[in-house]
Amino acid sequence: MHLAGDPPTDRAPGLAEVRVERSGGGTERDWVVVEEPLQIRVDGENLAVTLRTPGADRELAAGFVFTEGLVDAPEDLASVERARDVIESSHPENTVNVRLTAAAARELPRRREHAARAFRAVAACGVCGKKTIDSLRQTIPPIAPIAVPRELVESLPGRMRAEQRLFADTGGIHAAALFEPDGRLVSLFEDIGRHNAVDKLVGHALLNGPWPLAGRIILTSGRAGFEVVQKALRAAVPVLAAVGAASSLSVEMAREAGMTLYSFVGPGRGNRHV
Amino acid sequence: MHLAGDPPTDRAPGLAEVRVERSGGGTERDWVVVEEPLQIRVDGENLAVTLRTPGADRELAAGFVFTEGLVDAPEDLASVERARDVIESSHPENTVNVRLTAAAARELPRRREHAARAFRAVAACGVCGKKTIDSLRQTIPPIAPIAVPRELVESLPGRMRAEQRLFADTGGIHAAALFEPDGRLVSLFEDIGRHNAVDKLVGHALLNGPWPLAGRIILTSGRAGFEVVQKALRAAVPVLAAVGAASSLSVEMAREAGMTLYSFVGPGRGNRHV
Repeated sequence: MHLAGDPPTDRAPGLAEVRVERSGGGTERDWVVVEEPLQIRVDGENLAVTLRTPGADRELAAGFVFTEGLVDAPEDLASVERARDVIESSHPENTVNVRLTAAAARELPRRREHAARAFRAVAACGVCGKKTIDSLRQTIPPIAPIAVPRELVESLPGRMRAEQRLFADTGGIHAAALFEPDGRLVSLFEDIGRHNAVDKLVGHALLNGPWPLAGRIILTSGRAGFEVVQKALRAAVPVLAAVGAASSLSVEMAREAGMTLYSFVGPGRGNRHV
Repeated sequence: MHLAGDPPTDRAPGLAEVRVERSGGGTERDWVVVEEPLQIRVDGENLAVTLRTPGADRELAAGFVFTEGLVDAPEDLASVERARDVIESSHPENTVNVRLTAAAARELPRRREHAARAFRAVAACGVCGKKTIDSLRQTIPPIAPIAVPRELVESLPGRMRAEQRLFADTGGIHAAALFEPDGRLVSLFEDIGRHNAVDKLVGHALLNGPWPLAGRIILTSGRAGFEVVQKALRAAVPVLAAVGAASSLSVEMAREAGMTLYSFVGPGRGNRHV
């Protein structure tokens, strides 16, 4: 726990030791979440830098290129690997290179342009919702709704928390979890960034299955803002549940796309946006 | 409150009405925080789009161009105004144009290059802390430490919460507040993004004073990650207190720069990173 100085019993790699002065006085060891930049490359070209918690870096890179609309399916990925030589990166531990298949590489300019156009549309929108969704259509697949009992959705945060490794030690990390519609936990990822946790989850499914994510549930520990909703929509996820609040834009987007959106989910509570 | 359907007594402009189905059944009105894109232009050229809660948009734009290193002082700003005609923007409500003085416009390419170089250094860093700070030196002024009693720092979140307008209605908004070293509240800004709230605060000081922020305290409702620490450092703020957690990178950066960083601040608690 972040308020106690005892070393975590099961030190996860995403933790860094620090020293803090407590309120009562006295200086102790403590643990914070590691935050470091990850450079994501596509076929050797720098695409983006994201500040993330190390771990599942390949999954994060794969998920990012997918949710950003640059690849469409697992078949587009030839390999996803850390940079392995000095020519590629002076800090291979913080660089992942995504290599595309020849077919996907040919598609890249067109996909980039679609993604950029969708982003420009978001940027230009006044009222947003419908217009934004229309612009994102090229990158967002149709969503097939599923029926999930409310009680099941409300039970998911407790199950996610029980599986989180870093949260208990630091009190400062987000998580995203993938569930089957019957409530079985498929995967769980932690990161200092909410959006990174979702990208890791999506990337893990791209690389290892199950794929597609249609018919499944994503739970996010944080708020459901535009970025998280857009990433879940891109993965065709029909139900997104957030422990935190929704925003006006995320509510509009979920409604227009036919995604079921819950906010403030927990034991005996949850707002389903209708 | 987000779990009650009563209309907020004092409707702030950053709220949007939605309908939600509650856990106990039944559908009610509720309120979510507005999230909309703001396009920030510098001398008519698109610089960035940020998803923000409308309100204090001029302050947000001014703060953004400052914390990103593109202007150095209030004197660099000729005007900060909403786009006022269709030629400038089809959605003037979501576009702010920052006009630079002639002198600042001449400096812009060099400042852009410094900021880009600093960002590349962050992106390339393996161990980060010291190297990152060295690279940011060109955009970060010297920090002059101040002594603030721990009890005062621990009292700030309660005072900020009492002044927040949107949080009580939605449970889903961040805030940043500026305090004098004796605890007097100078300004408070809310936004769906933590970093936007800090930019609004910094931009308000740039436009209206007091400036510089040296000798003052910033409190953030969220976590103190890289972005928030970097923005506070850029504004020469000597004390940053966060209601949430710190990260490994933010602890290193604060230490290297000589900024006092508190995490998990609240009544009777607070970790000062040493």
